[in-house]
Amino acid sequence: MFDKIQTPAVLVDIDVARRNIERFQAYADSHGLKVRPHIKTHKLPAIAELQLDAGAVGITCQKVSEATAMVAGSDRISDVLITYNILGEDKLAGLLELSRKVRLAVVADNATVVDGLSAAFTAAAATLNVFVECNTGADRCGVASPEAAADLASYIAAAPGLHFAGLMTYPPVGGAAKVQAFMTEAKTLIEAKGIAVPAITTGGSPDLMSAHLAPIATEYRPGTYVYNDRSLVTRGVAAWEDCALTVLATVVSVPAPDRAIIDAGSKTLTSDLLGLTGHGHVLGRPDISIDQLSEEHGRLRTDGDINLTVGQRIRIVPNHACVVTNMVDGVYVYGKDKAPELWPVPARGKIV
Amino acid sequence: MFDKIQTPAVLVDIDVARRNIERFQAYADSHGLKVRPHIKTHKLPAIAELQLDAGAVGITCQKVSEATAMVAGSDRISDVLITYNILGEDKLAGLLELSRKVRLAVVADNATVVDGLSAAFTAAAATLNVFVECNTGADRCGVASPEAAADLASYIAAAPGLHFAGLMTYPPVGGAAKVQAFMTEAKTLIEAKGIAVPAITTGGSPDLMSAHLAPIATEYRPGTYVYNDRSLVTRGVAAWEDCALTVLATVVSVPAPDRAIIDAGSKTLTSDLLGLTGHGHVLGRPDISIDQLSEEHGRLRTDGDINLTVGQRIRIVPNHACVVTNMVDGVYVYGKDKAPELWPVPARGKIV
Repeated sequence: MFDKIQTPAVLVDIDVARRNIERFQAYADSHGLKVRPHIKTHKLPAIAELQLDAGAVGITCQKVSEATAMVAGSDRISDVLITYNILGEDKLAGLLELSRKVRLAVVADNATVVDGLSAAFTAAAATLNVFVECNTGADRCGVASPEAAADLASYIAAAPGLHFAGLMTYPPVGGAAKVQAFMTEAKTLIEAKGIAVPAITTGGSPDLMSAHLAPIATEYRPGTYVYNDRSLVTRGVAAWEDCALTVLATVVSVPAPDRAIIDAGSKTLTSDLLGLTGHGHVLGRPDISIDQLSEEHGRLRTDGDINLTVGQRIRIVPNHACVVTNMVDGVYVYGKDKAPELWPVPARGKIV
Repeated sequence: MFDKIQTPAVLVDIDVARRNIERFQAYADSHGLKVRPHIKTHKLPAIAELQLDAGAVGITCQKVSEATAMVAGSDRISDVLITYNILGEDKLAGLLELSRKVRLAVVADNATVVDGLSAAFTAAAATLNVFVECNTGADRCGVASPEAAADLASYIAAAPGLHFAGLMTYPPVGGAAKVQAFMTEAKTLIEAKGIAVPAITTGGSPDLMSAHLAPIATEYRPGTYVYNDRSLVTRGVAAWEDCALTVLATVVSVPAPDRAIIDAGSKTLTSDLLGLTGHGHVLGRPDISIDQLSEEHGRLRTDGDINLTVGQRIRIVPNHACVVTNMVDGVYVYGKDKAPELWPVPARGKIV
């Protein structure tokens, strides 16, 4: 099926992706939770459309350029949340342009960002929805306490050109209880000021099937769930057969009985470890570890005989699917009833 | 100087790059060593031309598509070594096409690869230069012993359509003595068969100033030396002011006194550690560690007060320069007499 594809290549099984999308949507529906998938995993408008078809309320993006590429790629994407502090003239202009095409929201965790958003949208006589980003333990962005969340919510609510849209967090793994506690307190404090909290949005694929443990959340933003990867299989969230994305590679050298080299290195698999040892799982060969990556070489080791021959092809489930789709200009999409087809990845490399 | 540039962005100081090129060329000239830079670091035809101007004999690439992009980008690139086992119909066709445009060589470490090269070039009534790749301790590709090198050299010399071009290695760090020993023995064995060894090529930026410790080598293939990076500074091979490539980033959040978040994550800096702790060096702030990367967030920590404000810009020397140029469609090139200009990176993402 993949004979004509030059390696290394990124393959996506569209049937598996669809099944992953539907499984989580069904779970979320049963708990009255809205789904807003993070497109960072696939970066493909056509897969965002599958997610919308299944019942997603919109999409999540991380950067303005990423959202712009996604919206340009599908006239069915009409609701976008950018979970990022947006700063700077060019990016604010990009936001304004997006806000004319779709229902748009962003997040903020500080007054400087709010001031910039307010100035840009006021000048254009436009309005932007802004969530307060809350730190529920991941220690990345986010206000540190429910009190600080309430203060920033008031600040946004009072800012010209802005509408306070609710609370957002990217929680630590296993953080549902923390989300529930933080958000409950923040919501109470904000409502006590007479400000409504229209939505509370949380996310993270590792805990997606525990989303109901933070019932205060109204919306979930899963990313990796659409493809799954070695990280999620190792966490017990998915099985190998739930992994829609694999890397096709060719053995280019078997220089020792216990060692083989493939033509996929860090320029395809990336160096992301996500706490794991080794750089991916070779399908059908659990005995093999990918113990070293150079940019264009992956080194495979086993305890006994590697039993691979030069020219043989293997498939690898990478540690982290999202970063792999960022390495390639196109992915080969295939399925039960679909021969592999090269799809460009419009939102690849959109870092600004 | 960089005010108009959206962040994150990759900056290249062309004066520093030129100085790095000239410094190593002068050293190599003084030791009678040819220089064949690996373009994986910059992926830019215009910088390859600077290297040729300084006296390089040609360029090194890792993949056929990378070489094709480089040759298409400069009519002054006329001599290319691809240090990779090339397999498969499409890639062999690409090699043939390249061989009609430039003086071309590849490497092989096994008979399957040699057979494929021979069949393709014989069928086209063409000739290809082939080096034997030798494992001098890096345990990646390469024949395991001088005897095996001699056997494969004979095999190449006897193969229709191929010309035995010499010996190639990518040595381990600090491996000059191993290169000298392996290559001396292999050369003796090959010459004893009546086969000439026209060239012996080695490489690696960490040891570039020790190249003379393996005097049997005729050619050196440095890559990272053109830009340098945190890895090479940590090894004592370069100083911060020798680092031509930096990442410009904006502080988007200061959520705690000892923590700040920038808009450059693993999609810009990559997760490559190269044995280091942390993900880059913040210029002028040696107290800061970049202790965690998400795709679009970099987390900065310090022991005391982080003393950064939202909106402030910083510059980072990444752990590994080569992989950073693979993340972006363009880099901003600037210099003493040159305002920043966006250069596309033609050989980015060329993995096949």
